Amino acid sequence: MEDTLVSDLCTPVFIVDLQKVKQNAQAMLERFQQMGVQLRPHMKTHKTVECGEIMTGGSRRCIAVSTLAEAAFYAEHGFDDILYAYPIPLDKVERCAQLSEELVLFHVLIDSRVALQQLRTRPLKGGKVWRVWLKLDCDNGRAGVPHSEPAALLLAQDIFQSEGVELTGIYVHCGNTYSCSGEEHIKAIAQKTTTFILHFMEKMKAAGMDGPKSSIGSTPSCSHPVQDMAQLSEVHPGNYIFYDAQQMKIGSCKLEQVAVRVLTRVIGHYPSRNQLLVDCGWAGLSHDGGGCLPTGYAIIEGHPNLRLLSMTQEHGRVEPISGNLDYKKFPIGAMLCLIPYHACATAMMHAIFFVHSEGKVVDKWTPTRGW
Amino acid sequence: MEDTLVSDLCTPVFIVDLQKVKQNAQAMLERFQQMGVQLRPHMKTHKTVECGEIMTGGSRRCIAVSTLAEAAFYAEHGFDDILYAYPIPLDKVERCAQLSEELVLFHVLIDSRVALQQLRTRPLKGGKVWRVWLKLDCDNGRAGVPHSEPAALLLAQDIFQSEGVELTGIYVHCGNTYSCSGEEHIKAIAQKTTTFILHFMEKMKAAGMDGPKSSIGSTPSCSHPVQDMAQLSEVHPGNYIFYDAQQMKIGSCKLEQVAVRVLTRVIGHYPSRNQLLVDCGWAGLSHDGGGCLPTGYAIIEGHPNLRLLSMTQEHGRVEPISGNLDYKKFPIGAMLCLIPYHACATAMMHAIFFVHSEGKVVDKWTPTRGW
Repeated sequence: MEDTLVSDLCTPVFIVDLQKVKQNAQAMLERFQQMGVQLRPHMKTHKTVECGEIMTGGSRRCIAVSTLAEAAFYAEHGFDDILYAYPIPLDKVERCAQLSEELVLFHVLIDSRVALQQLRTRPLKGGKVWRVWLKLDCDNGRAGVPHSEPAALLLAQDIFQSEGVELTGIYVHCGNTYSCSGEEHIKAIAQKTTTFILHFMEKMKAAGMDGPKSSIGSTPSCSHPVQDMAQLSEVHPGNYIFYDAQQMKIGSCKLEQVAVRVLTRVIGHYPSRNQLLVDCGWAGLSHDGGGCLPTGYAIIEGHPNLRLLSMTQEHGRVEPISGNLDYKKFPIGAMLCLIPYHACATAMMHAIFFVHSEGKVVDKWTPTRGW
Repeated sequence: MEDTLVSDLCTPVFIVDLQKVKQNAQAMLERFQQMGVQLRPHMKTHKTVECGEIMTGGSRRCIAVSTLAEAAFYAEHGFDDILYAYPIPLDKVERCAQLSEELVLFHVLIDSRVALQQLRTRPLKGGKVWRVWLKLDCDNGRAGVPHSEPAALLLAQDIFQSEGVELTGIYVHCGNTYSCSGEEHIKAIAQKTTTFILHFMEKMKAAGMDGPKSSIGSTPSCSHPVQDMAQLSEVHPGNYIFYDAQQMKIGSCKLEQVAVRVLTRVIGHYPSRNQLLVDCGWAGLSHDGGGCLPTGYAIIEGHPNLRLLSMTQEHGRVEPISGNLDYKKFPIGAMLCLIPYHACATAMMHAIFFVHSEGKVVDKWTPTRGW
């Protein structure tokens, strides 16, 4: 495999820069080691064994996943201390019970009394207890009990007092950092989220609930943590392993840190409309981020005057932002390098990731899929 | 498998109604049999062996594909007369040559002299010739030489006169029918496209090129063909096997004809923002069609007052179009049925299709992926 050059790969193809992945992983590990906070990296962006190994510093311990399929996949590959960071769907309680019984540590997450009730109707065997994280919504507006509602503390109490169930922690996703622009803005949201969860931990303590952990996460907030985050037990970012154009736009990273690309080739010249076609459509890139970049659905590396205007399943239309296309610079067969808007969405479109170092393909990673 | 009920499936899940698929296939086969036109169904929507078998009426002959991976997959499964309906990328010429040598009939498509030149540098073995379709652009604005440009006829002549190459046909995709609204509008585009290609065939004939076939396609135009389409050799629609909310909006089909759904379950209630969450995000549905339906990213079957407002990777936010959500109607764990905006895009997100009949799961289909 080491004889294959990246430039020889058939396109479209999703490529991962091994050095950048390792650097991104290491930077995050060191950042939170210095703060004394446990990093629980999220696997949802890549869903591969190899990247999970890198993100955990080789330990294969302490990860978060977004689907039960990921949980089972990582468990099969020797990972443990897995948090299924998703409001447990009722159709998946039995499979979660089995994972809880098989692994040393398998955690679930809930935000409703209905889900708690379901866990209680399925006691775990072997003297185990359900390890439950309560999802708190700190102004993100997706899953979780709103932090300011009395219902949040009441549900915490219910979990805390339930037999066969342990209130392991409080989990917050600060997805609202995705609307940020720049480091200061990210830090403001990170601070607000941290303040909310720490305040909630105080309220729990006052109500007799000492011991549960606290965790917040999102790649923007964990790329630029505020000092108060040192008071958290854990953080759980995921996208940082790859980063992408969106994270660059938010201010989480620099372009040089983005570890992934989609390679594509020119398949046609259309001078009558000042466009060329490339062999990457939404099947290779996803539709995510349409309209969010001045360069269209991606950044075309090294060509700031080009934009990926529109896509169909297997075709991408490229045109200059201004002026006429100089077709001599982009002959049919020429390779272009797309920096995805959203690496999680782009990675999902590929059954194989080609891993490269110094221009050579050094590995192929196969992500898991499904639910 | 026949004991599994659709209602027992873990969600999110992509389900295919076998009877509707068969009806959609049969209607298209009969429509063009009556018109005396060869149907060459396109596989790109589903990419499964089983659906290919149904669309070809069991013959496994005469199909179109959008990727070389599909071509190889269908060839391995006993299909033949395969048209790789995509401007042949230069990195794939050798694999196309091999398929041309292995199959009775393997067709490629070009729209440039550069591609023709590449084919000529790789003569086929065993006395075979490259079967080449010229892609003509009849006002669609994607791939193809614009029909009105002299370059189109010149390229046809070049192909016609090239040694080791046969000009098998002229291929047009009337993707501009996707901006139509209603049958009359679709028919107007179908008529225009047909007139353009038939006029081009006349010009070719006048220039001494008699024999090449003509083919147009798109699900809207082939669902409502105009009489002049009887003069074509072939048509090549694909999406009609499933149909979807987009095709219904265009006017290609009725809602009852849509054969696919994504099943999802309620995972949380959020009264403070009048929303509920379902366990289907863009990983299960795709981002395609955002903003194109009054009900958001999908139609929620049986609940015209609900809309799928936004999605993240694994979460979908649902809210009423007007009024307050009656949560009693949608308890946590309740199943909702999403009619996708674009079946091709939604199918791409799933590694397995669950096929059902009369409420029972009767088969599982595995699509091919990659390029």
